[in-house]
Amino acid sequence: MIGRLCIVGVGLIGGSLARALREAGTVKEIVGSSRNAEHLQRAVDLGVIDSFDTDLSEAVRGADMVFVSVPLGAMRNVFALLRDSLEPGAVLTDAGSAKGGVVADVKQVFGKVPAAFVPGHPIAGTENSGVEASFADLYRGRRVILTPLPETDDEALQMVRSMWEAAGAVVSEMEVVHHDEILAATSHLPHMLAFALVESLARMSEQREIFEYAAGGFRDFTRIASSDPVMWRDICLANREALLLVMERFQADMAVLGNAIRDRDETRILQIFQQAKSARDAFAD
Amino acid sequence: MIGRLCIVGVGLIGGSLARALREAGTVKEIVGSSRNAEHLQRAVDLGVIDSFDTDLSEAVRGADMVFVSVPLGAMRNVFALLRDSLEPGAVLTDAGSAKGGVVADVKQVFGKVPAAFVPGHPIAGTENSGVEASFADLYRGRRVILTPLPETDDEALQMVRSMWEAAGAVVSEMEVVHHDEILAATSHLPHMLAFALVESLARMSEQREIFEYAAGGFRDFTRIASSDPVMWRDICLANREALLLVMERFQADMAVLGNAIRDRDETRILQIFQQAKSARDAFAD
Repeated sequence: MIGRLCIVGVGLIGGSLARALREAGTVKEIVGSSRNAEHLQRAVDLGVIDSFDTDLSEAVRGADMVFVSVPLGAMRNVFALLRDSLEPGAVLTDAGSAKGGVVADVKQVFGKVPAAFVPGHPIAGTENSGVEASFADLYRGRRVILTPLPETDDEALQMVRSMWEAAGAVVSEMEVVHHDEILAATSHLPHMLAFALVESLARMSEQREIFEYAAGGFRDFTRIASSDPVMWRDICLANREALLLVMERFQADMAVLGNAIRDRDETRILQIFQQAKSARDAFAD
Repeated sequence: MIGRLCIVGVGLIGGSLARALREAGTVKEIVGSSRNAEHLQRAVDLGVIDSFDTDLSEAVRGADMVFVSVPLGAMRNVFALLRDSLEPGAVLTDAGSAKGGVVADVKQVFGKVPAAFVPGHPIAGTENSGVEASFADLYRGRRVILTPLPETDDEALQMVRSMWEAAGAVVSEMEVVHHDEILAATSHLPHMLAFALVESLARMSEQREIFEYAAGGFRDFTRIASSDPVMWRDICLANREALLLVMERFQADMAVLGNAIRDRDETRILQIFQQAKSARDAFAD
């Protein structure tokens, strides 16, 4: 049971966690914080949080769990603002999609990794954002990856794990670098492809006509291009090295396919498509 | 009203047209043909077609409309097999995803474009294939593009248009080359990206783990990688020039994004993502 939970950034991710924990009855009080009083008031009106304070150093007072779900580019500033007001023993965790950058931010602000800091990443979300898009079941059956460091206190780790399990998530642990490589491949790269494709098509002269003749597959394929641009800019910068690596690998693979098409190499083309279909079919829909 | 419709290739596309026309009551008799008697018997058992003949030259006898929905690579052979048995005045149309190649096949087999040939392309489909996946509503509200040639008889064109409208489709007309450019951009390129991405990830050592941590966005994004490999190999070859052009353009745009990330050019990254989001949001979901 969490006595007082402070959620910094009450959008889709923070709002959905609040709703889930309320529904599970595992939190007594939820305080929200961000720079936007209007958004926070909306979260209160929706019953997602109990109260709010735009002054972060005030909002974290008395909290035994602080959950930071702001864009990666805002993390360091958030840590700096709450550093001196954290209760002794308060657990600090986050929802950043790339962990290396968040850990570096924490180190820089605190001078070291605090034992009560548990880096985390819920593999869930939709292309929508904001507290209005939040819902209690967002994490049900979804993965949450925690990337504890050698410095991380085991009790803090267990508290964060219990929180996510109460929200219905399946929690696993892995190393920071490994997390960032896997996410670069399965999430960050696909988003780059979707953004680049839609932007590329949008620049063509027949833009309107092009989208008019797009079929269902195109809709599904490009849905993630509606994701929040600021959040994704931050992810690119925070996971820059791992992302550039998978982008280069993908570009090379696309070149191989392009050459096969140029050379009318039917065998090679078919082989690539068959291997893709077989891997995709094995992956439950 | 179509008296006798011959469908060559009774899979998702041909089967769904048969079901739709039956439901609309605009066809008296449907004969199926392909090389696979077992598949055709299944189509009869499902009530999709009335009868079948694996001998194409027999199947088209007495038909006033012949609809060819086979992979692009099989088109030329189909045209050669039915050429001498087509009834005088029978309308011939197809469902090929790239029109330039089909028109070339027809020209080669018939020595010229027959007046009764109406090239067509229903912009509909799912990642599933086979007559079992067919359903009457596949074309409801979806686009069908007809690409009539100067040689095309207007009455034949109107008959094909009426057939598709009876199936619930919205029919438009455009030139062959323009069709192939648009489809290369909105359909063929996204399929290349999905196939290449999944094949690329499948080769990584952590394959199983990678797919385990993939989220909902990845599922949607890669669904089209489950599409039929043979059909897509044929599309690549049939629309080779237009496809290579959009692939090159896309690779260049990906390189621009990669450079922006490498250079930590926040403004450029954000601009690309914002333009993509704005174009995608404007496109009804």
